[in-house]
Amino acid sequence: MDSIVDALLKGERWAIAKAISVLEDDGIQAREIVEMIFRHSGKARVVGVTGPAGAGKSTLVGKMIGVYRARGFRVGVLAVDPSSSISGGAILGDRVRMQEHALDEGTYIRSMASRGASGGISSALRDAIRVLDVAGFNRIIVESVGAGQLDVKISSIADVTIVVLNPQTGDSIQAIKAGLTEVGDIYVVNKADISGANLLYNDVRSLVVDGRDAVVLKTVASTGKGVDELVDAIERSLEKKLSNGYKERERKRVESELMDIVLGMLLKVAQERIRREHDMVDRVMKREIDPYRAAESIVSRVVRDG
Amino acid sequence: MDSIVDALLKGERWAIAKAISVLEDDGIQAREIVEMIFRHSGKARVVGVTGPAGAGKSTLVGKMIGVYRARGFRVGVLAVDPSSSISGGAILGDRVRMQEHALDEGTYIRSMASRGASGGISSALRDAIRVLDVAGFNRIIVESVGAGQLDVKISSIADVTIVVLNPQTGDSIQAIKAGLTEVGDIYVVNKADISGANLLYNDVRSLVVDGRDAVVLKTVASTGKGVDELVDAIERSLEKKLSNGYKERERKRVESELMDIVLGMLLKVAQERIRREHDMVDRVMKREIDPYRAAESIVSRVVRDG
Repeated sequence: MDSIVDALLKGERWAIAKAISVLEDDGIQAREIVEMIFRHSGKARVVGVTGPAGAGKSTLVGKMIGVYRARGFRVGVLAVDPSSSISGGAILGDRVRMQEHALDEGTYIRSMASRGASGGISSALRDAIRVLDVAGFNRIIVESVGAGQLDVKISSIADVTIVVLNPQTGDSIQAIKAGLTEVGDIYVVNKADISGANLLYNDVRSLVVDGRDAVVLKTVASTGKGVDELVDAIERSLEKKLSNGYKERERKRVESELMDIVLGMLLKVAQERIRREHDMVDRVMKREIDPYRAAESIVSRVVRDG
Repeated sequence: MDSIVDALLKGERWAIAKAISVLEDDGIQAREIVEMIFRHSGKARVVGVTGPAGAGKSTLVGKMIGVYRARGFRVGVLAVDPSSSISGGAILGDRVRMQEHALDEGTYIRSMASRGASGGISSALRDAIRVLDVAGFNRIIVESVGAGQLDVKISSIADVTIVVLNPQTGDSIQAIKAGLTEVGDIYVVNKADISGANLLYNDVRSLVVDGRDAVVLKTVASTGKGVDELVDAIERSLEKKLSNGYKERERKRVESELMDIVLGMLLKVAQERIRREHDMVDRVMKREIDPYRAAESIVSRVVRDG
């Protein structure tokens, strides 16, 4: 592990790849890596990119990389797919769309498989961000592919969250309603050159901006139109956040991370416990005791002063 | 509570409505109800209906009610929407589609809001099923609207799980791939009268049936075509399950319910604990200790012999 971490701190690509794979495996070595790199981390800024499938997130991220590189940043990209191994094909396709940056030393693009446990994706993601951070990448873009729950979670990991919407799919407004109005710092109406874009833009403005400090922008990711302005908006949002209440948000973020990890650990404890509680399960099956009483009794034996 | 439960056991509709509302509130009264009714429950059979949005689940459920009623069953329907309060409109619309059964004493239709906590929908759902069960409904149809995670969870609650697919939307195969191939006992290609239905039917057969004991059927929910055969298939599947390994599945189900409840309780304990752990959070923020070490230290103080 020491040699991997040494190479990581020098920004060597093989070490980044190896470290993230170790994190995905989620074994004892993953903990070791985090323990060794944690104190070096915390320099990079994290940009979350989320929104419904087909909104053009990957194409947009590809163009964002270009703009950031032109401005001298080193850019890491993590693409996360919560919906199991099978859809990995889609992500590989997305990576190909970012291929033009594949040979650039200042760019690192990686898709991530999800860890098994609940809250597991968040943990693996936070740790992978740290890997890229200590390897010298100062802007890390996290792209989430799909499912609503992770979309919302990304905003608790990223410094700035971008919600990308597509005028072509009627579910954009649905997607906004389903929790996304709360999480975005910047809303992007992509494919702004097609009909329906202005309608969506106005809808989003009225839904999102009312009483909230959010920005709504239009882009055409395929041509790169509006992406410069998007990166401007991201950087402004970062500056504002770093000067206003940063410490409080950082505390919330640490609490939320500790919560994820603690819960994962408690989950294991509870699973083991329940597997040993044959008698209690039997009693519930015979309807001698209801599930809440049974659970209380199990919890009281697991938790101190519970 | 006693009077509600008394009325519930007599099948009075106001008591059903009141009891499910109390369950949704998830307070101390919810526990009381479950404690009082649990030993009377366990007679009803639960049919889960899941699949992508727009597959025609609600229309199909409406027709299933008709077939079950004609066969003399008393049918309860619970429609669950995981995506927050705002989409409640859609479910109300769905309930209207089932309206023809609204005045029938042998039918009870109810949409359910999700509880806040993780695993909360599952718990509220299991308890609402018990309410309908003790009120004398012997077939309970649980319809899940949307999100993949709940779709999969429903199969751990229902006795028989039906996955409904729509030939019109290209994402059917995607949906099947995203975990749904594992959960269904019966796959229904709905809207079987439109083009693409046979293609989807063959796709589903080759994806799902290989090596698994699953049935694939075609229906046209709008006309009721194939619904009689669907109900036949459900009943056959129920019979088979009751005679083969029922006890083992029941044990798994109880374990899974206890796990959900225990985890919810541990979540509360952990949340309170972390809020009090200002010092630990500070140390992580200063990067004096990494999050895993911090979490371990918190867990060791929460868990006995941890």
